[in-house]
Amino acid sequence: MIKHPSSLIKLIQMLKKLPGVGNKSAERFAFHLLEWHPQHLDELAFTIQDIKEKLRNCSECGCLIEQVSCSICEEVMREQHTVCVVASCKDVFTIEQTHEYKGLYHVLGGVLSPMEGKTADKLSIGKLKTRISKLSIREVIIALDSTLEGDTTALFLKQQLAECQVNVLRLAFGLPMGSSLDYVDGGTLARALKGRLTF
Amino acid sequence: MIKHPSSLIKLIQMLKKLPGVGNKSAERFAFHLLEWHPQHLDELAFTIQDIKEKLRNCSECGCLIEQVSCSICEEVMREQHTVCVVASCKDVFTIEQTHEYKGLYHVLGGVLSPMEGKTADKLSIGKLKTRISKLSIREVIIALDSTLEGDTTALFLKQQLAECQVNVLRLAFGLPMGSSLDYVDGGTLARALKGRLTF
Repeated sequence: MIKHPSSLIKLIQMLKKLPGVGNKSAERFAFHLLEWHPQHLDELAFTIQDIKEKLRNCSECGCLIEQVSCSICEEVMREQHTVCVVASCKDVFTIEQTHEYKGLYHVLGGVLSPMEGKTADKLSIGKLKTRISKLSIREVIIALDSTLEGDTTALFLKQQLAECQVNVLRLAFGLPMGSSLDYVDGGTLARALKGRLTF
Repeated sequence: MIKHPSSLIKLIQMLKKLPGVGNKSAERFAFHLLEWHPQHLDELAFTIQDIKEKLRNCSECGCLIEQVSCSICEEVMREQHTVCVVASCKDVFTIEQTHEYKGLYHVLGGVLSPMEGKTADKLSIGKLKTRISKLSIREVIIALDSTLEGDTTALFLKQQLAECQVNVLRLAFGLPMGSSLDYVDGGTLARALKGRLTF
């Protein structure tokens, strides 16, 4: 049997490390890249090498920044007494896209997951407490995934922040937009019922 | 609204050019790459730049090769009088993985698609005819997609090869393995009935 040339195998192996990319997708990507113009390949290669040098995390909130100062921390128009706690800096952009939130952010750097070595000391909780007292934060919104790890981390954070005298809230649970009751799982429906609203 | 830093936007835009990768996936890939070790990022960048230099198409069959000579054309153990016609060099590896075919290959370089500028003169048909007579090929297996373009190209090839005195065959049509009749479309079922087999 004829196998892929070794340089192609190497590229496929590297592309397989991307999230959700299996053998088939990595193969498709590699063969697609073969059709790109060499100039575009160079550009992609340079961009990949560049990101680590150009981007860093804000030492205060942990958001991804390119400049010396953090545009979120320094924006005076933001509501300065509310902080939204997220797991990763990607979540900051996801929440910003909703245009629904105007406060500060705090990137935890993950959720509690002892199996993956993510223990409480690996998360930026101490820094969060410092910021809460320094910035006189009144409201903390915990915006973590509604998974087992997310729920555990939210509960843990609530306990940790009990001494801080802040209002600790979570994102609401319920039906996703455009969903049909037929296809919604029992857990979601139970939470939607429990959190029923007047309208 | 806070947007992604510009170098991240650039990377996302480039990753979106990969097949089947939309905005969401490109974003996930970019943020995942940010977590890679700089050494791995460099390695990926070098591999991407390297493929165009290291890989080329065999001047005879069109397969992807890394060495000076083509391992498929030169392999004496292969059945030398059968050629399998495929659209792209990726298909060669897909067919090789079945371990069902031991003959030669010929890469057409696409299928007829006038809308995308793929006309007959863009396909390697002349070269195929030359090889058929030079190698005294007796059987040509057309292994193209079972799409409108694939069917058209197969018919066109059959006409073109009529003068060559070779047996022109196509891949069989029928039920895919493990499929249920409930979920198979009418066209496939009709073709499976038409091509019914003794067993």
